[in-house]
Order: sequence, then structure tokens, then C-alpha cells
Amino acid sequence: MAEENVKNQELMDKLVSLCKRRGFVFPSSEIYGGINGFWDYGPYGARMKRAIENLWWHEMVETRDNVEGLDSTIICHPRVWKASGHLDQFSDLMTDCRNCKSRYRVDQMEDPTTCPNCGSKDLTEPREFNLMMKTFVGPVFDEEHAAYLRAETCQPIFVDFHSVRVATRQKIPFGIAQIGKAFRNEINPRNFTFRSREFTQMEMEFFCEEAQGMEFFEYWKEQRINYYRNKLKFKDDFFRIYVHEKLAHYAKAAIDIEVKFPFGWGELEGVHHRGTWDLSRHSEFSGEDLSYMDHDNHRKFMPTVIETSVGLDRTMLALLSAAYDEEKAATAKEGMEEDTRIVMHLPPLVAPIQVAVLPQSKKLKESAYALYKEIDRHFRAEYDDTGSIGKRYRRQDEIGTPYCICYDFESGNDNCVTVRDRDTMLQDRVNVTQLRDYLEKKIEA
Amino acid sequence: MAEENVKNQELMDKLVSLCKRRGFVFPSSEIYGGINGFWDYGPYGARMKRAIENLWWHEMVETRDNVEGLDSTIICHPRVWKASGHLDQFSDLMTDCRNCKSRYRVDQMEDPTTCPNCGSKDLTEPREFNLMMKTFVGPVFDEEHAAYLRAETCQPIFVDFHSVRVATRQKIPFGIAQIGKAFRNEINPRNFTFRSREFTQMEMEFFCEEAQGMEFFEYWKEQRINYYRNKLKFKDDFFRIYVHEKLAHYAKAAIDIEVKFPFGWGELEGVHHRGTWDLSRHSEFSGEDLSYMDHDNHRKFMPTVIETSVGLDRTMLALLSAAYDEEKAATAKEGMEEDTRIVMHLPPLVAPIQVAVLPQSKKLKESAYALYKEIDRHFRAEYDDTGSIGKRYRRQDEIGTPYCICYDFESGNDNCVTVRDRDTMLQDRVNVTQLRDYLEKKIEA
Repeated sequence: MAEENVKNQELMDKLVSLCKRRGFVFPSSEIYGGINGFWDYGPYGARMKRAIENLWWHEMVETRDNVEGLDSTIICHPRVWKASGHLDQFSDLMTDCRNCKSRYRVDQMEDPTTCPNCGSKDLTEPREFNLMMKTFVGPVFDEEHAAYLRAETCQPIFVDFHSVRVATRQKIPFGIAQIGKAFRNEINPRNFTFRSREFTQMEMEFFCEEAQGMEFFEYWKEQRINYYRNKLKFKDDFFRIYVHEKLAHYAKAAIDIEVKFPFGWGELEGVHHRGTWDLSRHSEFSGEDLSYMDHDNHRKFMPTVIETSVGLDRTMLALLSAAYDEEKAATAKEGMEEDTRIVMHLPPLVAPIQVAVLPQSKKLKESAYALYKEIDRHFRAEYDDTGSIGKRYRRQDEIGTPYCICYDFESGNDNCVTVRDRDTMLQDRVNVTQLRDYLEKKIEA
Repeated sequence: MAEENVKNQELMDKLVSLCKRRGFVFPSSEIYGGINGFWDYGPYGARMKRAIENLWWHEMVETRDNVEGLDSTIICHPRVWKASGHLDQFSDLMTDCRNCKSRYRVDQMEDPTTCPNCGSKDLTEPREFNLMMKTFVGPVFDEEHAAYLRAETCQPIFVDFHSVRVATRQKIPFGIAQIGKAFRNEINPRNFTFRSREFTQMEMEFFCEEAQGMEFFEYWKEQRINYYRNKLKFKDDFFRIYVHEKLAHYAKAAIDIEVKFPFGWGELEGVHHRGTWDLSRHSEFSGEDLSYMDHDNHRKFMPTVIETSVGLDRTMLALLSAAYDEEKAATAKEGMEEDTRIVMHLPPLVAPIQVAVLPQSKKLKESAYALYKEIDRHFRAEYDDTGSIGKRYRRQDEIGTPYCICYDFESGNDNCVTVRDRDTMLQDRVNVTQLRDYLEKKIEA
């Protein structure tokens, strides 16, 4: 076990290093010494993040007639968070060391009576610390003008439920989904981007009749598992379902989809049956009746909610850590020593670069570049002609590019190029006129 | 002039009403009475916003070898805003009425000596009010732990300049671009989504040698104008170039692209030659040398910056207000009275729905729906079979859908459908096997 921990810590270190070196993830404000719990996505990270957002949006919104999109503000009316319970209950127990003035989360201390910094036993009584980030809207900085950065993207969905339903003429059952930033003033951000203070959520709330609640809970659970299996290519031993036994008093069922991060199993997505809790609370606190009138059956009821809630940063981290691999690879020339190929087995749908175009020689630049510009219209593509072809393959392997196209000295004659598969390293000879179809099929497979 | 003002106010009212009714834009937290200066994008608005983001990203990042993407945090190290000057200078002059306690921006008062609310002349001396939104990071709420929501997305680009350059091996000239939220505590948010407190920016900073500054300034000015003309289909009388005559001391040149909003001409995008100001300031404040080493010519210099900075919410508002039209349209049956067709002439690349599939009769649902599912894989599509075909066309016109496909009783025989153009209302008969190509060409035209 200790050995595995070392291995996992090594993997994490290698991953953080690769992310920095190749431009996936940087510490935010690094030249100013960084800011704890905040991470920036560099060029490849930003492309990959946008690709995951667009994939989720496509799967959850664009291709579904009964799920609508939303894009609400991060700062909402503060009563939203009173109704949701965040203002009163979204807190951690904290203690201060009277000697060295350090502050700790009690649930993260090995021994809550001893300061981990100075060893003093003189700690304050634990007290609640709210995790919402506070700001002020308007020119007066007092409690009346306090507002909060949203701690989750789902609450504005409940708040806008009625407006969305009326505008879209949707009938129950239907869902509302959104992607956006959320903020939590974590006392102890950790595990790279897993627990940070600013993060992106992708959430969907599905509104249905109470009698259909469990059916839709099972439906969405299956949909989301299929998404991970088929779109993000999760292997069976990489994820598991954690069934909540202790539920919130209003909840009917809840599962988490957990994945094997280098630091252990961690939550990636929750699928929760939330009953009528959220809409009831917002009805009560706003004075607006959010219940649903079923005109076909002449009855009015408060919709039941099934939620799917995923962390985008955690999705990135899961994909990157699952993808990382070091392989002993034979170099191009036979008889030479083996060297190590660092390869990221990222799923083609969300790899930052899907297709790289590499001319066999710089002499072929003009034609190869023209081909790249054509490919770049339909795929996330990159052109590279610097260094040996072997080096260029390695660079693409390291950022997870699934398909490398080599434009060679034959290509001008036969109008064909060689497409190399990152994982199998097998090569196909493909006619340029067939290339878009060929790549589309491969990437969507 | 007064008449035109009334007409423009009417247009604005109609637009706000349509945006609410059809789900483009809602007031944030509306059931709680709203929160001044914050707007949510509803289902069609969210789709359109994402489409504009992806278009800009595609044009500015994906298709350019020398522009890299970035996705940085909203909360940065507070010294970023010290270096940028925002903490000291990003402020408005405010005055308070001692009688009724109202607070005003001095530059927006018609008569800065009289309270517009109660008429009192007893106002405080004007004083500076900083527009950055403040929060606290970590468990202690004191000045040492204060942080700010970014007031613009460009500063983190400068902060990450060195990391991005090293990771990507880019040589000057090259650019870094990002899309994201920014926040300004506007005292008087107004004009719908034009001046709000939370908004999305799309910014690109291009780094070059000083000697090339003006050349790239002209290049990017032209690029951005072409984008508005060719991609967003701006007409010549809808936008104009405002040349800044009074420049910041460090700036070499600056223009704004302004568009004709219903409330008058307003800034949409700025293209600014910022000299070496930003990188010099961050070098000075961070102690990290951000100058560039040109190994080919053995010299080191601070790069000159050309910035293109556009407001996404303003782009939406510009597109929606330019698109709005009411036409007298003949109804389907001849000899009947004309009625009014509300039609949004949105550019096909960013219309929330690009293609609607409408069966001539509900009897054709199965085949029409299958066709829709195929189309939905490649375009933002919608299926509608409720109400008369005329009514369904009108619903699509109102949300700006450029192409409506009618699947009729002949379609099963000839494998063809009728495609109706929103603007010309002309119809083409197109074979289903050609449909994707046909629509792609039309949408990208």
C-alpha cells in the first residue's frame, strides 16, 4: 500500500509537471507567488475544457428535445441562498490556534486538540465558517448590499424554472441545464484542481411528477454512466457507483459516480433525487408559486427534481490522470535502444488537438500546410514541421493527439496521406478526399 | 429627433419583451424582485451566446497558428490589480444626498448640485468610488485577505504571458486569447444588457516588436471589421469606427468599433495599441522579468501589445436589435388581410436554432422526426409539429431560424424536402442526401 501511494504521488507529480510544461494547467497568478486554490487553463487545457463543455452541452441540451439550456449570472439575489440553505448551513467547523494564530478545519485535523503548526494545545472552541464568497453590489458596503458568488450552478435553474417553462412551452417531464463557474471559500484547497476555490460545474435539473421520480432517477443514472463509458471512454475499473445511505431529509435517492484519482477515489458527478424540496423552498421564500399546472389532467403539483451535477475541472483531472502513460517504445531505427514514450490516451472527442498534420520534410510544407488548413475547419488541428518526424510524433503523443497525418513524398502523386493511430501506432493510407469522413468516424467511434 | 427617440424606445421595449417571451434574456433572480444590473440568458439566449463564443474562439484561436487560448480564474492575486492600476484608478466620482441618502455618479447627473430624487441641494463633495468587486479568500475577512473579481479578462493574459510562451514554444509575434466573465460594480447599470455588472468578454492580446506595432494594429482592426461584416453580417450603416484622439499616456493608437443600438451609438469592441505598458507594469510589480529573448537576433526586449477586446453581451444585444423586424406578410390564403410577421434576421452562424424541421402533417411525424435527429447531429436544430404550418413558420421567424425544412407528403416518394429561407421566403426542393452539404454552404456563406 505504501508502495502504491508512492507510485500515485509520483504519477501526480508527473501529471502536474506535464500540465505546466505543455500548457494544460498553470497556477493562477504564478508570477505573484500564486493564489491558493486557483488554477488557470493554458492553451491545451483551455481547448480541452471548451471541448468537454461543448460535448456535455451537445449530449445534454442540443440533442434532447426535453432539456433546455440556461446561462445565469454568478451573482444572484442573496435571498436565493437563504432559500437554498447555503447562508445558514453551508459551513465548516473551524478552530484557531491562540498561540500561532493559524486556522484549521476541524474535520481535517488528525488531532483536533493540537495545532499542527506549532504544537500548542491552546485552540479556540470550534465554530461555523460559511463557505460562500461574499461581495457587495452597489455603492454602499453594508449587510443590506451584501451578495454572494454562487456556490453551485443549480440554484438559478430553480429560480428561473417558471420563466424557462413559459418561454419554451415545455411540459413536464423536462429539464434545464447550465454550465458555469461556482465558488467555495475552501479552507484547505488540495489535490491539484480537484478541490479548488473557483471551479466550473455542469448541472442539469429534470422536473417530473412524483410518481415518475425513481424511474427518471434510474434513467439519468444510466445516461450519465453511458456518457462516461461511450464518450469519455472510461474503463470499468476506473469508476464506481457510490450509493448514499444517509440522505438529506427531503431526498429520495442519491448516487455518486466516483473515479480513481491518483490520490484515491473521488466524486466526479452526483445523480440525486431531490424530491420537491428546491422548488418548494423558492416558492416559500420568493412568494411566487412555482408549482406546475397540468392542463391535460386538471391538476396542479410541485414538480419532483432529479439532478445530475458534474465538476468540469474534476472531469479534466480524471481524464488527464487516466490518460497518462509511459511506454517503452522502439525508436525508429532498428537495433537501437528502447526509449520511453510519454503518451496521453485522451478520448478523441475531447483531446485538445484531434489531428496533427506533419510533413515528412520541410520541402513539403506548402502542400501539407494547405491540407492542414482544410482539416482545421472541421477538427481541432495543429501543424508541425520542426524537428525530426519521430520527435514530432512524441510531442503529439504527450498532449494526447489521437491522429497524426504524415504528408510524405508520395502524397503529391497518389493524393493519399498516412494516418497514424496514437494508441496502436498502426498506420492507414487514406485518400485526401476521404479524410474528413475517415477522421469523423474514428473520432466519434 | 423626438419621433425617432420614441421609435427607438419602442424597439427597445419590443426587444426586451420578445427576449423574455421567447427565452433569450430574463432578469436575474426575477422571482425575488430581480437584482439590478444582472441578466440571465434563457434557452435560446444561452444557445446563441455559446454559438458566438465558439465562433469567436474558432476565428481567433482554432484557425490561427499564432494565437493561443487561455482560460484563467476570475479571482486573481490582488497585486494583479495593483499593477494594472485598477485598484488605484478604476473609479467613478460619486456624490451623496445628505437629505434622502441617495448616491449618484457625478458624470451622469444633469445638474451635479441638485439631487434628482428629492431636489435637495445638500450634496456631499464628490469622491472616488472603486468599481472593482471585492471579496475575501480564506477564513479571515481582513484587508490582507481581500481579493477582487476581475474587471477585465486581459490582465491574466499578461500575467500568464511567460508561461504560455514557454509551454507553446511560440515566437513573437503571437497572441493569447480568452473568453470569460468580468465584473464591474456599476453605480447605474442601464440599457438592458449593454451596461451590466456581470458580463462576458472575449479578448485577445497580440505580442510583437515595437517596430511592427502599427502594422499589427492595422491588421487586427481590419480582421475584426471583416469578422463583423462577413461572419456577423453587419451592414455598413450599422457600425462605424471611432478613432480615439485622447490616448492613455502609454498608448500609441486606439479605435472603437461602435454599433447603432436603439439607444444610440455604443462601443462594441476596442482595438488598442497598448505599447509595452502592461508587461512592464507586471514585470515591475511581480519582480519577474517578462521581456522576450529573441534568440535569432540575440536581443531582448519588452513586447508591444495590440489588444482586441469585445463584449459578448453587447454583441448579443447588437445582433438582436439589428435583427428585429416587423413585416407586413400575406397570409397563406389569398385574398385575406395582411398580417404582421415578426422576424429576427439573425446571422445563420450564430442563430440559436439554425434549422427547424416541420412535418406538413402530424401523420408524417415518424419520418420527419428521424430526419430531424440526423440534422441535429450537425446543426442547432429543432422539431415542431404543433399547430398549423403557418404558425410554426412564424414561431421560427420570431427566434431567427434561417432555414425551415418542411417534410411533406411527397418526401417519402422523392426523398426530397422543401427548405424555406427565412429572409427571402423562397423555397428550394433539396434531396435528403444533399441536405447537410446544402445547409453547411448556406450557413457558412
